[in-house]
Amino acid sequence: MTASFDLPSLKRFEAEAQAHIRHPQAWDYLQDCAGLGRTHQANLQAFAEQRLVPRPLVNVGGGHTRCELFGQCFEHPILLAPIAYQMLFHAHGEQASAAAASAQGSTLVVSSLASQTLEQIAAASDTPPWFQIYWQGSRERTSRLIDRALAAGYHTFMITVDAPVKQAHFELPPEIYAVNLEVPAAPAAKHPHQSEVFDGWMRQAPTWEDMAWLRDTLNKPLLIKGILHRDDALHAQKLGFDGLVVSNHGGRVLDGCIDSLSALRDIRSALKDELPILFDSGIRSGQDIYHALASGADAVLLGRPYIYGLAANGALGVAQVIRLLRDELEMTMALMGKRTLDDIHELSKN
Amino acid sequence: MTASFDLPSLKRFEAEAQAHIRHPQAWDYLQDCAGLGRTHQANLQAFAEQRLVPRPLVNVGGGHTRCELFGQCFEHPILLAPIAYQMLFHAHGEQASAAAASAQGSTLVVSSLASQTLEQIAAASDTPPWFQIYWQGSRERTSRLIDRALAAGYHTFMITVDAPVKQAHFELPPEIYAVNLEVPAAPAAKHPHQSEVFDGWMRQAPTWEDMAWLRDTLNKPLLIKGILHRDDALHAQKLGFDGLVVSNHGGRVLDGCIDSLSALRDIRSALKDELPILFDSGIRSGQDIYHALASGADAVLLGRPYIYGLAANGALGVAQVIRLLRDELEMTMALMGKRTLDDIHELSKN
Amino acid sequence: MTASFDLPSLKRFEAEAQAHIRHPQAWDYLQDCAGLGRTHQANLQAFAEQRLVPRPLVNVGGGHTRCELFGQCFEHPILLAPIAYQMLFHAHGEQASAAAASAQGSTLVVSSLASQTLEQIAAASDTPPWFQIYWQGSRERTSRLIDRALAAGYHTFMITVDAPVKQAHFELPPEIYAVNLEVPAAPAAKHPHQSEVFDGWMRQAPTWEDMAWLRDTLNKPLLIKGILHRDDALHAQKLGFDGLVVSNHGGRVLDGCIDSLSALRDIRSALKDELPILFDSGIRSGQDIYHALASGADAVLLGRPYIYGLAANGALGVAQVIRLLRDELEMTMALMGKRTLDDIHELSKN
Amino acid sequence: MTASFDLPSLKRFEAEAQAHIRHPQAWDYLQDCAGLGRTHQANLQAFAEQRLVPRPLVNVGGGHTRCELFGQCFEHPILLAPIAYQMLFHAHGEQASAAAASAQGSTLVVSSLASQTLEQIAAASDTPPWFQIYWQGSRERTSRLIDRALAAGYHTFMITVDAPVKQAHFELPPEIYAVNLEVPAAPAAKHPHQSEVFDGWMRQAPTWEDMAWLRDTLNKPLLIKGILHRDDALHAQKLGFDGLVVSNHGGRVLDGCIDSLSALRDIRSALKDELPILFDSGIRSGQDIYHALASGADAVLLGRPYIYGLAANGALGVAQVIRLLRDELEMTMALMGKRTLDDIHELSKN
Repeated sequence: MTASFDLPSLKRFEAEAQAHIRHPQAWDYLQDCAGLGRTHQANLQAFAEQRLVPRPLVNVGGGHTRCELFGQCFEHPILLAPIAYQMLFHAHGEQASAAAASAQGSTLVVSSLASQTLEQIAAASDTPPWFQIYWQGSRERTSRLIDRALAAGYHTFMITVDAPVKQAHFELPPEIYAVNLEVPAAPAAKHPHQSEVFDGWMRQAPTWEDMAWLRDTLNKPLLIKGILHRDDALHAQKLGFDGLVVSNHGGRVLDGCIDSLSALRDIRSALKDELPILFDSGIRSGQDIYHALASGADAVLLGRPYIYGLAANGALGVAQVIRLLRDELEMTMALMGKRTLDDIHELSKN
Repeated sequence: MTASFDLPSLKRFEAEAQAHIRHPQAWDYLQDCAGLGRTHQANLQAFAEQRLVPRPLVNVGGGHTRCELFGQCFEHPILLAPIAYQMLFHAHGEQASAAAASAQGSTLVVSSLASQTLEQIAAASDTPPWFQIYWQGSRERTSRLIDRALAAGYHTFMITVDAPVKQAHFELPPEIYAVNLEVPAAPAAKHPHQSEVFDGWMRQAPTWEDMAWLRDTLNKPLLIKGILHRDDALHAQKLGFDGLVVSNHGGRVLDGCIDSLSALRDIRSALKDELPILFDSGIRSGQDIYHALASGADAVLLGRPYIYGLAANGALGVAQVIRLLRDELEMTMALMGKRTLDDIHELSKN
Repeated sequence: MTASFDLPSLKRFEAEAQAHIRHPQAWDYLQDCAGLGRTHQANLQAFAEQRLVPRPLVNVGGGHTRCELFGQCFEHPILLAPIAYQMLFHAHGEQASAAAASAQGSTLVVSSLASQTLEQIAAASDTPPWFQIYWQGSRERTSRLIDRALAAGYHTFMITVDAPVKQAHFELPPEIYAVNLEVPAAPAAKHPHQSEVFDGWMRQAPTWEDMAWLRDTLNKPLLIKGILHRDDALHAQKLGFDGLVVSNHGGRVLDGCIDSLSALRDIRSALKDELPILFDSGIRSGQDIYHALASGADAVLLGRPYIYGLAANGALGVAQVIRLLRDELEMTMALMGKRTLDDIHELSKN
Repeated sequence: MTASFDLPSLKRFEAEAQAHIRHPQAWDYLQDCAGLGRTHQANLQAFAEQRLVPRPLVNVGGGHTRCELFGQCFEHPILLAPIAYQMLFHAHGEQASAAAASAQGSTLVVSSLASQTLEQIAAASDTPPWFQIYWQGSRERTSRLIDRALAAGYHTFMITVDAPVKQAHFELPPEIYAVNLEVPAAPAAKHPHQSEVFDGWMRQAPTWEDMAWLRDTLNKPLLIKGILHRDDALHAQKLGFDGLVVSNHGGRVLDGCIDSLSALRDIRSALKDELPILFDSGIRSGQDIYHALASGADAVLLGRPYIYGLAANGALGVAQVIRLLRDELEMTMALMGKRTLDDIHELSKN
């Protein structure tokens, strides 16, 4: 066995991305975490603590990583998470990510805060990308955003509920903005002693009643993203959501949050195997993906890692990152004696 | 949800304070810890290990952080701990802290070692600050100090019992001293083999008998500060104290002390919900405040953090620090689906 | 007791090796770990966490470290693991390692990827070294390699099964190659969406059926190397292997793998004391060897440590490293009140 | 309570010692640990993990730290451990340490490897120091050493049994040597394959039979030093030793050893309160002493800390270190509400 294969590490893409990003604050924005970064560290630490016991000598002939999600077939369970303003990181923006995902048998979930139009992004992809919805402060405004996505051909949707408070720590360059959104309504004036949170942002946040309305209104596959508590997972299931995304937003919203992998296990045990679960926050290697699948996820979303590829090398860089992680996942499967994703999922049923 | 909000971190105030402080040793004095700093690290570590499981989509309309303590109403449960010699950190000293606290719906607990007169400090505040008592070596001397505070209009008192041994590692500048205290009595001469502790300082320390006397003598709301053991909390309750402050003096007295958060939980479970508990030592963010409240505290006292604001920017800096931590507390509450402090306190009753 | 003895630490050999290695990438290759190095760290950490309780005043007169393995007598239980391309590290290559092992009452396990011929290496040793087999993609090719080793007089064999995927991160210099192997077969062309792993490397990997064939074919002592799961250990025992090597390949194959010492304990408890177990991955001192023996190993294999000696000082350096670790093992035994390896093995039977 | 007291930390003595030591290798020798220093780290870590819950307001009037050991009264339970060749660290050598101990109400345990004569050292002390015995390879040689100490007036003895192998990593300067010892016997020639340990050093090591002989021979208070296992403690008790010293030789003999504090607790629980236990290895503060006493020790021995004082400032430095740790112990007692050592010992009886 003398064939040689050099696996480039994700670390190399991270370094190249930092070298290539033009906007001085864009790199900080990409890497930013809430508070002292404890949530992000907890995400990484949870994966670092997992241990694999290899099983050599298993015949894994005919093995593969194919899967089906909401009627769509994928070569592997590695999708691209919604990330805002991708033109900050490369001039080809979301189009590059969408094209790379499509070419690699994956898909991009397009952010509400995309810096290119929904139509442009869809045109860059062989199969329609998915669309991520941020609540727009009212049902009417939210409906108008969804209608635009439907008209552009999107037919799988994901509403993010974990970040009613949007934090942007720097001024975007004038040419980069959320081109698919309406101009936000001006906030009402406040008394000095009023609460920024309760009397301000939270008035724009959606509630479970809004989720019920959305589920009834939208006759498409619909996922809810940002669920960490088992009771909320059961609530979403009862409302008829088609799936959910366990995520702590990559540690960007609340510092000191439960790590994503622990939340995944708890929620999978609550849901049994009745509802598809996607997972993000902390995936940095193919072994991490293996652990997420073995903990009950049906697929994972990459966040910062594919943006490293985008910043380093546009669509080609995104494709390389997807391929790197797929190869690592396959090698882990082979060393663990697993032929298919179903073989891995069995592990979460014990 | 595209509104942007930039939360300045407490870290920035700490850095600015260090840059502004004039007295070269004052910064070291402010940051100083007992021994190797293990108590202080344990305080911070206890908070760092807490994990939150967010609950999005809860309707928190009308939420607020108001609370009542000893008949006084506050906008939020964040008070300012007694800290000595504040003119070391800013020329406006305790007056600046008192004014900022008052403007932000909080209050300052004025130290026995204040560098401005009780009358000056009270005059800077719309509502009367609280007064912290250090035992003055005898009942007579202690009574005279309290009488002066009563005459100046103070009517909530807090006696500190955890630091009979006062450590000051540098010579104060001549113009800064404890202006409200009498000249200390000269200590008696000692034999060479005599104990500095048992034959020296501890002769000046108060006992539980002195606490009973103080409680009977002072007909005002009276708290006892520096309690860490559940039996001492029950003792204080039996003597009729109106509340207690769980504190290890910010790690400045005894190295290797139990962390403040663990002590809080133990004491709250011993007291049930019968006595108000204030808490200090280790608070550095709004999430920390949330954890203290969820562990049984009715309010928290800031220590070094508000002095960072004072040193960086006088009264305005103190106000900014209070507001920062209040905003963080509110955001944590909103993400956790909690409308009021009572909703948080429920967590400590399980 | 004033005799003085200066134990040179293995750290010194590591530093000297780094200074001596000529090929710029050879050092990185030697130290390389899979992924982020978590497996390697876990190996070291597992040893670091062991605690010894010394037993002074025991009469250990006549103590020794002699042992018998597969009919061969050794002065001590410290063998040299198969490591590829040793001419990268010193011009005398595998011959130097074999000669040093022989002189120190140990043996070298010669790698399939040796940079000198099997005949040259055997000639450098008083007693025949052992031979390590990598599966050659088919039974025919593997048979031809074994036949060559048999002809050269080798009569103890060890097949490595934990690394179907061979990773070489740099181009070898032209004069250094696996001189004992046939030219590898060219891989078949692949479709773009095909799997590098399942449709590529793994087609060359052996299976348990191949192991059964090998065991039946080869009428010599035969060990299986790279077993970490108790069920695989039992499987190997059932097939009639003469022993096994618990190893995670020094953390070079799969990142996030179980640490080698935990695997050893689990496997020894599964096998009772019915089958000899060798152990590698993480040995850096005589105390580590003591812990491995006390956890159920019959002998250990050194990996990187003896290459440090080889690079630093050729055969003499290898001999010094063996002697250093033997002396440390003996000193640990003496301080623990153990006279022989059997006394240590007793510890694994509780 | 405005009196100020500045506690100099032991860290300052350590830094001054390093600056003052003339022999370039003497500092390394003083700080040296076995192997990777894991035993030493474990010692320190065990203390760092202890937590104190202060008990203010207790009347500790008349408190003190006096104790009686083997018929001798001490002001406090802080003795000086046997340390070799003290003239390496200061020209006044063991005499300075003995004089300082005597002045501070403590005592020095003089090492068999002292660099000054037993008579000189005894002359520097008001009360006779104790004498530490290293086994001299035979009962005859050991007897002659003890007879010399008896003649010099020593009447409390301590035999060290944990270091049959003496490691000295550098050449002593010619004027510094173990002046009280006979010239060692030349070791017999060895075969190349012979064991350095079993065929060399260990032939000089004492056994339990030698301990029985020593106990019967020496009609003075006799302690055994270097016990870590409960069975060995019980064995020593049965032989009639007057006390024992729980010690891992400051982490200088065997790396990966159990930490000293855990061993102390286990041994005290085995012995109940029937035999005095002294303790060393890891004491760096008065809180550490408090924890050792609360874990079952009757007194502690300082090691490196007093040599820091000796190197920094001769007898005065040793006295300052003793006083520093005594003051810290007293302050800890006062804050914990403990008046006497008996109050602390009560804690180990739960």
